[in-house]
Amino acid sequence: MALKKTPVTGMKDITPAEMELRNYVMDQVRSTYTGFGFTQIETPAVEHIENLTSNQGGENEKLIFKILKRGEKLNLEKAGSEMDLTDSGLRYDLTLPLSRYYANNSNELPSPFKALQMGNVFRADRPQRGRFRQFMQCDIDILGDESNLAEIELILATTTLLKKLSFKDFTVRISDRRILTGMASYCGFEPDQYDNLFIVLDKLDKIGTDGVREELLKAGYSEDSVDKCMSLFKEGDGSVKALKAFCETLGDKLNEGTAESLVNIIETVLSSSDGGFNISFDPVLVRGMGYYTGTIFEITTAGFNSSIAGGGRYDEMIGKFSGQKTPACGFSIGFERIITMLAEQEFKVPTASKKIAFLLDKKLDNASRANIIKEAMALRANGERVLVTAMKKNRKFQKDSLEKEGYTEIKDFYAD
Amino acid sequence: MALKKTPVTGMKDITPAEMELRNYVMDQVRSTYTGFGFTQIETPAVEHIENLTSNQGGENEKLIFKILKRGEKLNLEKAGSEMDLTDSGLRYDLTLPLSRYYANNSNELPSPFKALQMGNVFRADRPQRGRFRQFMQCDIDILGDESNLAEIELILATTTLLKKLSFKDFTVRISDRRILTGMASYCGFEPDQYDNLFIVLDKLDKIGTDGVREELLKAGYSEDSVDKCMSLFKEGDGSVKALKAFCETLGDKLNEGTAESLVNIIETVLSSSDGGFNISFDPVLVRGMGYYTGTIFEITTAGFNSSIAGGGRYDEMIGKFSGQKTPACGFSIGFERIITMLAEQEFKVPTASKKIAFLLDKKLDNASRANIIKEAMALRANGERVLVTAMKKNRKFQKDSLEKEGYTEIKDFYAD
Repeated sequence: MALKKTPVTGMKDITPAEMELRNYVMDQVRSTYTGFGFTQIETPAVEHIENLTSNQGGENEKLIFKILKRGEKLNLEKAGSEMDLTDSGLRYDLTLPLSRYYANNSNELPSPFKALQMGNVFRADRPQRGRFRQFMQCDIDILGDESNLAEIELILATTTLLKKLSFKDFTVRISDRRILTGMASYCGFEPDQYDNLFIVLDKLDKIGTDGVREELLKAGYSEDSVDKCMSLFKEGDGSVKALKAFCETLGDKLNEGTAESLVNIIETVLSSSDGGFNISFDPVLVRGMGYYTGTIFEITTAGFNSSIAGGGRYDEMIGKFSGQKTPACGFSIGFERIITMLAEQEFKVPTASKKIAFLLDKKLDNASRANIIKEAMALRANGERVLVTAMKKNRKFQKDSLEKEGYTEIKDFYAD
Repeated sequence: MALKKTPVTGMKDITPAEMELRNYVMDQVRSTYTGFGFTQIETPAVEHIENLTSNQGGENEKLIFKILKRGEKLNLEKAGSEMDLTDSGLRYDLTLPLSRYYANNSNELPSPFKALQMGNVFRADRPQRGRFRQFMQCDIDILGDESNLAEIELILATTTLLKKLSFKDFTVRISDRRILTGMASYCGFEPDQYDNLFIVLDKLDKIGTDGVREELLKAGYSEDSVDKCMSLFKEGDGSVKALKAFCETLGDKLNEGTAESLVNIIETVLSSSDGGFNISFDPVLVRGMGYYTGTIFEITTAGFNSSIAGGGRYDEMIGKFSGQKTPACGFSIGFERIITMLAEQEFKVPTASKKIAFLLDKKLDNASRANIIKEAMALRANGERVLVTAMKKNRKFQKDSLEKEGYTEIKDFYAD
């Protein structure tokens, strides 16, 4: 049978140059987040099908790669549907496995538990440019802290990381799911209309206020409510002052303490970091996943039209595994987007060691060759990178290629 | 539906302590092998089912996790067998994907190509202690070098790494597949008997010479051949002298140059490294995989009864993808075994940064809290690890727990 040379549809092979960049970013992620007291964990790529299809994953549950049952468990004749054939699948995110992990191990874990995860997830999305069916996610989560210290630390850690990765003038957009529901209530929408309302509001960036207004009216919502809602967004510059004014307008439609906590998060982040980014209240921030229960945030940067990080508080999810309510808050950077952006900027990975190539004449005798390898070993022990390889007939081409790979010292060794 | 807390059968969650050790080992792997001119690549965890079932993987092909076709491609009614339901699966090793990768990308890759791979592979093995269905493999391969410089560099790189990981007095056992076939021919076995003969010889460690002799006779081989074979192994101390004597005995049954090359590998490795391990000729070294064509080697260490690294030359495999014969040689460390051994020895991961915990009284006002977080940020910018967390009622328990996690400075911040 002919073997296939290309990767499976929608997945990609990673080249040495991209891998060097990925390793550099992963090192920065690990050292930065470790500096904030996060500890790394890992869960298997394979997860129980029951967990993957438990309605925690929204649209992602339609994109699961399902794994065939094995041995006696697989009964092709009796299988009435796809679900009879599978008992596991590839994880579509890291939040669901984290919830399972925490429910299973919470007795041995510190409280609060500050988790860092870096791992591949899998989604059978329609293949398209820049989107892959296997991609790296990189999440930090704080489990067991109901106070807004969780939000503050998550935002400080993520912004510190982005600055280390040479991102400048990015904006943390922040809001709270309870501000969204308070606003919907204030405008006269019914609770069963909230979800759809938020989905439409989320399009504001793309279709503008007129587009949103039109879509809401088409959906049959009262013109009164829609106009009240639209007028709310007209004012406001993202400042703490605007946030306070917005929340005052909502009055008793907003849970007590929500505004104060959000103001405190913004002010603490601003005063305890050394700047380099903006933080801005955004009342129309929605964040797709339905599991968010409180603060939500994302990071946008000029010249890139989707967010490069996102997260929020999800206090109800862990309890579905453990039966015990556990406050939780997380922030996830768009690892693949960041890699794409850095690669496009031709970001140079800093390195401390020299790249040296030793080119060996094929006529060298064994003893001379052993001596040269010994010399290479001494340099390697000293932290240098030394390639020992045969000299080629076309030496100019060989040297040009090596220089392209970053070799700055190329040394020829001829037989006497 | 009740959610499942434990990982899927045979796979495991990785704790923060184990993850710290794994990251340390991975860093050592990367820095050591990079020092030898290897560059890291990555292939997807998912591979074409045609490639996975192309008879390159031996017994591993029985252990594939197969992935269900999706959408219209999945036709349950017309499916006659398991293979109709699947078009991909999880990779069972990194060698097969490397071959595919090289065949697909060789035009853009340097020649020879020195590849480092670290990644998870999946085998639906019977679950047992210390063996998991998802585990990390860590391979270095040199593609496109037919000279024994490949073997020398692979052995030097692997032994350098093991020494960095504090392994002492381990032994590199080395032989050549052509010595095995030469020996079989010399003893009068027929070529179609070789494979089975080698499988039995491979058990010498476990069942001894008497056991092997008995099994070979039972299998119906001539007593003459069996006894000739057994007597060959009686002598020999693994030295270069013994290797030369062994090869001389085989005479023209051994390919020209095989003995000289093996002698040169051993002598060059010994003279260009600074010791700390043994290298020993082992005529009964077999190595399981059928794809080996030349030199084979593995590393054993006292107190552990299976090898901690293994590899060899496989000059025929890449050509099956590319249609172009490409010499190849690889060495793989047993990553999970090494982690298990280091963990059992309570190996301490060296760290340059201090672990500091700030415990915050819940009554602190916002401004004071912001100042403390600012202080933490300054220490973090300085490379320290600082955990900022709420002070608990049971402070003794909290401090004990933090000390167990490695926090050496714990600072209390009370409200005035």
